[in-house]
Amino acid sequence: MRRVSVIGLGSMGFGIAVSLARAGFAVTGFDVRPEIVARFAAEHGKGARSPGEAGADADAIVTVVVNADQTNQVLFGEGGAAAAMPRGSVIVSCSTMSPDRARALAAKAREVDLLYVDAPISGGAQRAAEGALTVLASGSPQAVAKAQPALDAMAAKLYRLGDEPGIGAAFKMVNQLLAGVHIAAASEAIVFAKRLGLDTAKVYEVITASAGNSWMFENRVPHVLEGDYRPRSAVEIFTKDLGIVADMSRSHVFATPLAATALQMFLMTAAAGMGKDDDASVARLYARTAKIDLPGD
Amino acid sequence: MRRVSVIGLGSMGFGIAVSLARAGFAVTGFDVRPEIVARFAAEHGKGARSPGEAGADADAIVTVVVNADQTNQVLFGEGGAAAAMPRGSVIVSCSTMSPDRARALAAKAREVDLLYVDAPISGGAQRAAEGALTVLASGSPQAVAKAQPALDAMAAKLYRLGDEPGIGAAFKMVNQLLAGVHIAAASEAIVFAKRLGLDTAKVYEVITASAGNSWMFENRVPHVLEGDYRPRSAVEIFTKDLGIVADMSRSHVFATPLAATALQMFLMTAAAGMGKDDDASVARLYARTAKIDLPGD
Repeated sequence: MRRVSVIGLGSMGFGIAVSLARAGFAVTGFDVRPEIVARFAAEHGKGARSPGEAGADADAIVTVVVNADQTNQVLFGEGGAAAAMPRGSVIVSCSTMSPDRARALAAKAREVDLLYVDAPISGGAQRAAEGALTVLASGSPQAVAKAQPALDAMAAKLYRLGDEPGIGAAFKMVNQLLAGVHIAAASEAIVFAKRLGLDTAKVYEVITASAGNSWMFENRVPHVLEGDYRPRSAVEIFTKDLGIVADMSRSHVFATPLAATALQMFLMTAAAGMGKDDDASVARLYARTAKIDLPGD
Repeated sequence: MRRVSVIGLGSMGFGIAVSLARAGFAVTGFDVRPEIVARFAAEHGKGARSPGEAGADADAIVTVVVNADQTNQVLFGEGGAAAAMPRGSVIVSCSTMSPDRARALAAKAREVDLLYVDAPISGGAQRAAEGALTVLASGSPQAVAKAQPALDAMAAKLYRLGDEPGIGAAFKMVNQLLAGVHIAAASEAIVFAKRLGLDTAKVYEVITASAGNSWMFENRVPHVLEGDYRPRSAVEIFTKDLGIVADMSRSHVFATPLAATALQMFLMTAAAGMGKDDDASVARLYARTAKIDLPGD
């Protein structure tokens, strides 16, 4: 494999494209924002004007768009990549989506003789740029083997979770359920602590050394303490991802009351106008509701 | 300080008493269960037949009972320790309770010329026995100074959080809010994963290396995977502690929807007959409700 195209040059996709270029691949980038394509092309590789142009002659396409609908659109919509890709090449689908949607996209790829790896990612923009993501991959051995060089350039941790597309997606959704609940709980706890009159910097120190800690508490509460809500990851990501959990909860007839409650908190935060801000903004929602002052708010 | 009495020889109190004895204190133990007092006296120190007997001539009393009511009873009830303790000696109160209750107990101690350290603990029975607890202490400098040798023998991490009793209690409640939500979320997520047909051992491996991790997920999910619900910490502890959070939520007019939802899951688990089982039993509640088989259930 030599030529890889990345579709979707947001903070994650751009970092992935840069990592692939650094690893020696000839990388073509596409995004709906021409200025971002131009920036990528100027420094790291080639730009494409459509998903189809990105697909032509690519050995692998990495899709890093917002959701399943966008993934379907850039692959199989008008001017999509799939029709242009050489038969036998591989799609690496990184967007978070339900397992059902991942399986459906894989089936469409198979119909047109393309390989498909269900490969949701985690780790954030900086790790993407370092080629140090966690990748939760599932797909046929043939598809994974074909994608392996690109996956290796993207990932510090590559989990191979099964031979069926959809398994990677399911692992990602379990992670997002926990991550979303933990962000909401961290927000609830740190503003509750403020209500109780506690020194919140001390709360951070004590909790991160105690049984109440979570990866998200440790990572997001500093945003609250510093009053910095520039979006490292936005509220909207979790209204989307906990929304997928809610859909799966209904379709699998499995109650997820914690995730459902967390989703409501993210929705309230988005409704209050903070959808594009950092997801630690849930703390601002708690604080504003209770008329509690937080730094920088 | 030479003589310390421990009131309440459950798994935490027994471990604390053993740690104090190992550190060279002359330790007297009291518990409502005479057989436990006898076991302690046979191997580690002296036994008392009442809180009052435990209080007489003690330089410090460490109370490790279930809640504020029991703490009040063993200190200030009939035959309680406070009346028997030498004036100027110190009470180290380790039970989890609301800040209001901690302040009220400290005020009662002050009225009878006793010092009081609000000193909730965390870390579990094994750390208690090793003298390696985390102690969240607040109280007057005089009280903390008096208690310091005993606290040092109990704790690997001693946080001094302020000069007012109640501050330690408040930190503990913030921790318990998070811990309770995280246990419920871990239970929800691991059974959801099972519903999705995932390999739950692999889910544990992936999540503990991902942003969805929490201290509680990492610690409790192995109980579920091994089907071992012997109570390291029981469901009833969290119906109690999240109940205190719920009380504080109302008295401080501060909504805690995540904690409230988690409390309901612990209550359902207790209602289903698992109140005295390990708190990872919340996973069994999710599984039984949805007719999903877990190991050992």
